[in-house]
Amino acid sequence: MKIHIVNPNSTVAMTDSIAISARAAAGADIEIIAATAHGTPTSIEGYADEARAVPAMLDAILTAESQGAMAHVIACFDDPGLDAARAFANGPVVGLCESALIAAGRIAKRFSVVTTLPRAIPIIEDLADTYGCGRRLRKVHAADIPVLDLETAADRVLPLIAAKIRQAAEEDGAEAVVLGCAGMSAHLSWLEREAGVPVIDGIGFAVRFAAALAASNIVTSKVGAYAPPRIK
Amino acid sequence: MKIHIVNPNSTVAMTDSIAISARAAAGADIEIIAATAHGTPTSIEGYADEARAVPAMLDAILTAESQGAMAHVIACFDDPGLDAARAFANGPVVGLCESALIAAGRIAKRFSVVTTLPRAIPIIEDLADTYGCGRRLRKVHAADIPVLDLETAADRVLPLIAAKIRQAAEEDGAEAVVLGCAGMSAHLSWLEREAGVPVIDGIGFAVRFAAALAASNIVTSKVGAYAPPRIK
Amino acid sequence: MKIHIVNPNSTVAMTDSIAISARAAAGADIEIIAATAHGTPTSIEGYADEARAVPAMLDAILTAESQGAMAHVIACFDDPGLDAARAFANGPVVGLCESALIAAGRIAKRFSVVTTLPRAIPIIEDLADTYGCGRRLRKVHAADIPVLDLETAADRVLPLIAAKIRQAAEEDGAEAVVLGCAGMSAHLSWLEREAGVPVIDGIGFAVRFAAALAASNIVTSKVGAYAPPRIK
Amino acid sequence: MKIHIVNPNSTVAMTDSIAISARAAAGADIEIIAATAHGTPTSIEGYADEARAVPAMLDAILTAESQGAMAHVIACFDDPGLDAARAFANGPVVGLCESALIAAGRIAKRFSVVTTLPRAIPIIEDLADTYGCGRRLRKVHAADIPVLDLETAADRVLPLIAAKIRQAAEEDGAEAVVLGCAGMSAHLSWLEREAGVPVIDGIGFAVRFAAALAASNIVTSKVGAYAPPRIK
Amino acid sequence: MKIHIVNPNSTVAMTDSIAISARAAAGADIEIIAATAHGTPTSIEGYADEARAVPAMLDAILTAESQGAMAHVIACFDDPGLDAARAFANGPVVGLCESALIAAGRIAKRFSVVTTLPRAIPIIEDLADTYGCGRRLRKVHAADIPVLDLETAADRVLPLIAAKIRQAAEEDGAEAVVLGCAGMSAHLSWLEREAGVPVIDGIGFAVRFAAALAASNIVTSKVGAYAPPRIK
Amino acid sequence: MKIHIVNPNSTVAMTDSIAISARAAAGADIEIIAATAHGTPTSIEGYADEARAVPAMLDAILTAESQGAMAHVIACFDDPGLDAARAFANGPVVGLCESALIAAGRIAKRFSVVTTLPRAIPIIEDLADTYGCGRRLRKVHAADIPVLDLETAADRVLPLIAAKIRQAAEEDGAEAVVLGCAGMSAHLSWLEREAGVPVIDGIGFAVRFAAALAASNIVTSKVGAYAPPRIK
Repeated sequence: MKIHIVNPNSTVAMTDSIAISARAAAGADIEIIAATAHGTPTSIEGYADEARAVPAMLDAILTAESQGAMAHVIACFDDPGLDAARAFANGPVVGLCESALIAAGRIAKRFSVVTTLPRAIPIIEDLADTYGCGRRLRKVHAADIPVLDLETAADRVLPLIAAKIRQAAEEDGAEAVVLGCAGMSAHLSWLEREAGVPVIDGIGFAVRFAAALAASNIVTSKVGAYAPPRIK
Repeated sequence: MKIHIVNPNSTVAMTDSIAISARAAAGADIEIIAATAHGTPTSIEGYADEARAVPAMLDAILTAESQGAMAHVIACFDDPGLDAARAFANGPVVGLCESALIAAGRIAKRFSVVTTLPRAIPIIEDLADTYGCGRRLRKVHAADIPVLDLETAADRVLPLIAAKIRQAAEEDGAEAVVLGCAGMSAHLSWLEREAGVPVIDGIGFAVRFAAALAASNIVTSKVGAYAPPRIK
Repeated sequence: MKIHIVNPNSTVAMTDSIAISARAAAGADIEIIAATAHGTPTSIEGYADEARAVPAMLDAILTAESQGAMAHVIACFDDPGLDAARAFANGPVVGLCESALIAAGRIAKRFSVVTTLPRAIPIIEDLADTYGCGRRLRKVHAADIPVLDLETAADRVLPLIAAKIRQAAEEDGAEAVVLGCAGMSAHLSWLEREAGVPVIDGIGFAVRFAAALAASNIVTSKVGAYAPPRIK
Repeated sequence: MKIHIVNPNSTVAMTDSIAISARAAAGADIEIIAATAHGTPTSIEGYADEARAVPAMLDAILTAESQGAMAHVIACFDDPGLDAARAFANGPVVGLCESALIAAGRIAKRFSVVTTLPRAIPIIEDLADTYGCGRRLRKVHAADIPVLDLETAADRVLPLIAAKIRQAAEEDGAEAVVLGCAGMSAHLSWLEREAGVPVIDGIGFAVRFAAALAASNIVTSKVGAYAPPRIK
Repeated sequence: MKIHIVNPNSTVAMTDSIAISARAAAGADIEIIAATAHGTPTSIEGYADEARAVPAMLDAILTAESQGAMAHVIACFDDPGLDAARAFANGPVVGLCESALIAAGRIAKRFSVVTTLPRAIPIIEDLADTYGCGRRLRKVHAADIPVLDLETAADRVLPLIAAKIRQAAEEDGAEAVVLGCAGMSAHLSWLEREAGVPVIDGIGFAVRFAAALAASNIVTSKVGAYAPPRIK
Repeated sequence: MKIHIVNPNSTVAMTDSIAISARAAAGADIEIIAATAHGTPTSIEGYADEARAVPAMLDAILTAESQGAMAHVIACFDDPGLDAARAFANGPVVGLCESALIAAGRIAKRFSVVTTLPRAIPIIEDLADTYGCGRRLRKVHAADIPVLDLETAADRVLPLIAAKIRQAAEEDGAEAVVLGCAGMSAHLSWLEREAGVPVIDGIGFAVRFAAALAASNIVTSKVGAYAPPRIK
């Protein structure tokens, strides 16, 4: 089964990194189609970047379906354009934040998220409410680093992220900690050391989650809110 | 004071109609800048159309600020791109749905909304939750008409909308009814006859609401979620 | 247009101070009728004072309507008697807390409130829930000063309030701070210095907000919860 | 132990009727002090009547405490002035709606309320939310009768109320039905016939509930929101 | 009237201690039937212990009804099997946490809970949400002591609990503090010293609360969710 | 990978039927261990049956882990003992209702559930709230049939269920319909004909969902609420 994972930003190195995580996670029967949303911001840092990224991301979804993709993963923790993607796609679509929070809520009663920039804090809090896990979310911590530093200055920023993970485990009563940025995925094994609680990267699970929906023939309803755009 | 009202769809006739409502509402000290988001869908009917419309709408906001606009109104009842617009704009930005629901909540404990297509029902319900008036919202009714029929077939569709308004007043326990589409604004005086409860069109109020914020020097915070996009 | 602003407490000096803020905010086309609720507590500090103040405040509303007032502002951050006032009035009625929180929610995803006495903290938290912005409200801080000290000992208490504003901006992740007492209005310009985020006083905005409703012909529904009291 | 039950309206016949229900419910060790809030509306029908009734009701609470009352019941289903009463009283205070909904929630997962006038519907819905049982409340039905008709035209209006009770049991999935007006208490035995589900009148339970709090030495906290009014 | 109080764990010494509190609380007209759920864990510390305890607890309820019990109290702060007990019992059933939180919410706008083990924190938070007082609950503190230490090492652990109570009163803005374990009941008078706010033990109130329901003839609805198990 | 699916009731024919659905859903790399909770009620119809079934179900989980099960599915739509199972298990545990509602929420903005007995309606509504999809759930319909009739009288009861599915699609605005009983799984292909919207059976998806968690190394946190029971 072909699963499409789309990076809504235009940094190809980040797409490559995401694809490695996705392929490592995918079983033998899953083929990953990794796409970059070209012409979009180089990283998604807030509502403005999200809005600029969505149309190209939707185009990537249509392209992937024409290539046989059976399901889609939006590989950005803001889940930009998730509802719009569902209206465009035939297969199921899942977001990275959505997948990670759903996973966390199955194995922990209370969890925290560690993300990059402070401006993402209310965005992630609101997503947690939308996905119905606002009560389970203890706190969103921001390490105060730009997203692309995860690609270009990992040595410097990873210790800052690890410190926030430990703080969440010790001070929040968090039973698990979720990595709140697609760019952290490549560093999961390093970050989960010393955490003392499970650390969850959503990329691998999101791929399997999307595949589980498609394999169960659970595809986007085309009646109601996710009906395809009317021809005008 | 210049207030910018932007129609996110590309139907100029609808922009013109909205501008007439806006100018009728604006007092002597308000100048309306009405803009069309060019290159977007001809009407906004669901998530997919919204996503395609937002980038051009954001461009219109930047243009309007360069022309001296002190505040902005997004003239579509889905409030597409509202958070993104706030990150781009310096002046305050309000949405049509947001403004209408806030107004309704000040003069009625319970109200209903009458909109065009059924696919908009969950969208408007979710917006009501986001704006904190989910308990006040009795029901969203859809007259099951395409948005542009309000422009091209008003004689046929207005009685359908009026019937839904009466139904809301009689069956829902609605103390007021909100018109759930920018295209209904031109027909407010016709629609509010025989309703028996206040009928609220948001266009006029949204203009005054945006102006009230700007005149009070209440402008978008640039710390946190609405910080301008980072230069990358 | 005449807008009525009523001070529910019986301290005329506070009414005068509120009237100055209101008139400074009102445009050329708004005439302010400022009233004091005579025979009520000298300040509104909690549920007991509220209850004692409401009947005289309702009388003030009827008087103001007989003088041509088109809309009403309740100038106390507890919003005492807001629903009762709507049942009595024909024009729209808005509360100070209600107006300020609505304004804050348009320009900030997360905000905090700074008020006077600790007993007001749960009152304001509950109002935020009632107005649907409980998630946006980060924290209510109390400077622990009696309300009337704002009139009689401003030099001493203003630095305490300013310190709480800075604390909110620095520790809460608040993107804006709302002044949580009508008596703080006169000191807005002093308090917003060094805050680092927008500081919102609701008095001026509440006047414009009420006027915007009235000018849009959005008046209190007389069907349902706000129907006038039955003659018995 | 003396328990004070106060009728916030000024109809003494209704106080007498309430006192009979209360005394029938009270055990041998409870003495009922029944008071009327003089000078208030003859019935409480909506926010305006509530506001006019509260100050005299608070006076009745102070009087009752001077007579040895250990706890207080506000015998009106709108629970007017409940928070203010707590700030004034030393003993615990419970409302009629509050008590009845708390009782209903212990013996039924879902229940409905039958009240008098339609304007009370959103008031009771909001109280249910405040008391945390909004999800348990299936529906509020109004028989569309003035409150005092329960005193003066019982023969005519009781069948209307009984019909609404049956409707709630059959159509709402209500596992119990709550009588939503103090004036219905005297007719409980008649109304619960043929209902098919438990019918709950709150008067008797409210007396015992208030006594249970007082006997357990659980009295109103005087720290925070219910601190007594400051002397000014 | 006979009231049944059941200790879901198998530690008879704890049942005895609970029975003493219950009998001290019960008036002259209440006879306490205290039962131990034999064969269950020696203390209830989390979901696993709860599940193991419930079937024997349900048996105890049936036995008690055959002995004339008119109402039931589940004497464990996790309220294990509360809904199941309602389906089995004819009389009303109340939980300890449920009773204590309901009592606290009548006399304080905001309160905190002090419990034993950290694993109980999310359990109690979720119960508060279920009982509709999530907003009133400021914080759940855990003294980090095993439940049975309250029986066997009271001298050592009571000061730890007292310290948490003081912390709650001073740091949380709690207007009352609830004891979050049945085993704390015997120590109420010691623990409430120096607290500065009301300290609530639910055992005594729960007995009176259950009796108040039964005496008011408010018994579990047998229509719907609490219908008795079907014979199969 | 071995996935354990446990039928909490003691009807082996139902376990067999569930196992067939599970094996049909599982890919080549998943081996299903299907277990029956012996000594439990023959069907789970409400809280009382749930409580009686959980201890044996927990034993089955321990047995399955000793047999190499990496994850667990509770195959009953009431999700009995889900939290307790997580405290006992090392691998992840998912419930049938939980899995089905999570799947539905990914492909539909609004959905309904069709279940067997009316007593399950509030149970499923409450589970939807717990899983954070209360707003997405339009309505729970009960076909009013005992669970075991799905095994013994399928010809008679399936048309009743199909009628409820059509009603949900036509009247509720449901964009998908979820089958609300494990016993319906075998009849999915028959039931989804003529529905007009996606019909979701959770069994197959739950197996894949549990496998996706385990394969992603997302296992139950043993810190906090799901810590193993303490040895006493």
